[in-house]
Amino acid sequence: MTPQRLERIHQTLSLRQPDLTVLTDEVHKDRNLSAIVRTCDAFAVPEVHCVWPGDQYRLRRNQTAGAGTWVDVQTHPAIDTAIDHLQQQGFTICAAHFSERAIDFRDYDFTRPTALMLGNEKEGISEQAAELADEHLIIPMQGMVQSFNVSVAAAIILSEAQRQREVAGLFEHNRLDEETYQRLLFEWCQP
Amino acid sequence: MTPQRLERIHQTLSLRQPDLTVLTDEVHKDRNLSAIVRTCDAFAVPEVHCVWPGDQYRLRRNQTAGAGTWVDVQTHPAIDTAIDHLQQQGFTICAAHFSERAIDFRDYDFTRPTALMLGNEKEGISEQAAELADEHLIIPMQGMVQSFNVSVAAAIILSEAQRQREVAGLFEHNRLDEETYQRLLFEWCQP
Ligand SMILES: C[S@@+](CC[C@H](N)C(=O)[O-])C[C@H]1O[C@@H](n2cnc3c(N)ncnc32)[C@H](O)[C@@H]1O
Ligand SMILES: C[S@@+](CC[C@H](N)C(=O)[O-])C[C@H]1O[C@@H](n2cnc3c(N)ncnc32)[C@H](O)[C@@H]1O
Repeated sequence: MTPQRLERIHQTLSLRQPDLTVLTDEVHKDRNLSAIVRTCDAFAVPEVHCVWPGDQYRLRRNQTAGAGTWVDVQTHPAIDTAIDHLQQQGFTICAAHFSERAIDFRDYDFTRPTALMLGNEKEGISEQAAELADEHLIIPMQGMVQSFNVSVAAAIILSEAQRQREVAGLFEHNRLDEETYQRLLFEWCQP
Repeated sequence: MTPQRLERIHQTLSLRQPDLTVLTDEVHKDRNLSAIVRTCDAFAVPEVHCVWPGDQYRLRRNQTAGAGTWVDVQTHPAIDTAIDHLQQQGFTICAAHFSERAIDFRDYDFTRPTALMLGNEKEGISEQAAELADEHLIIPMQGMVQSFNVSVAAAIILSEAQRQREVAGLFEHNRLDEETYQRLLFEWCQP
């Protein structure tokens, strides 16, 4: 490992935002999931939480792990327990979801601990998950098509989260706890 | 056609921005191109201009046309003539491209007539195209991975263009010329 590479790893770790995460509710296409994970890495999101469709839980958990060398991809068996797990940790669950109670994503305060929940390519967010979510966010659309590709929606919203966190100075100091920092440093330095 | 549907078509046409467009420099995956076209529709971009890799010009022109019922997908034989064509029409060519002269995409004024140029999945924007471009824009990245998926990059930048144009009041009045409006109205009303 070159000193430049090590420096880059330290730099990246020191920008990571432990209080910003993504939760996927049965997003099933690998290419969408890997685009989401890639976007998370770029916007300093350290973890992605996934719930898989139907009985793909076992099948997928390893496959997906590969998608993120730089992002921890965690699998949950069901959406209700995943939401509960994140709420227990203090996250506000924001469903990217069209509904009566949805607000424009730019009006949400992303400096709060936030888990952005994204829905399945066909069905969107399940009824149960929509109900359990603390907030619903929409990206206003001006065309004929009814929705964005899910990885595109994720990127548009996370870009706004990044912007707000930059303005708020949340990238100015390391925000990972010492244990997580050292664990990731060790993992990322493996050849 | 229901009156609601016709109303929706009029509504969409009246938001279309004739002075905002996208130009792809050898983006070759159909799924990326269709995600870009879908995003263009949602952000009121009426046309996408494409240059295909290698000898796929003939092969692809029809295939792609199908991707956009609501967005005109135009094929050009080469990037230099495509850029020239758009510059002649008054567009500033903005390459989404990492370079010394690149500026943060949020610092660019998207109320100007703008063609956003996106590069190939592997090679990025060609040297020739980068040189011919009027501006280079980057989306700052804070992770280990070096670039976004191309359709994700397009969406992040177009979302900012939409935001700026909203602030500037560019969605308040119809901006298509009468001929284009009537042509699209006719096409979109076909069953
Ligand atoms: C292809 S969409 C699902 C469409 C589904 N028919 C529906 O009505 O929800 C996949 C996911 O992308 C996200 N998404 C797409 N467009 C969005 C928008 N304009 N605002 C918020 N989220 C969006 C949502 O999380 C959605 O569940
Ligand atoms: C996968 S990238 C190409 C990467 C290529 N290795 C390079 O260095 O240009 C495909 C296209 O997405 C756009 N893109 C990706 N990430 C970007 C970023 N952070 N800023 C601006 N454009 C980006 C560019 O147009 C790029 O040509």
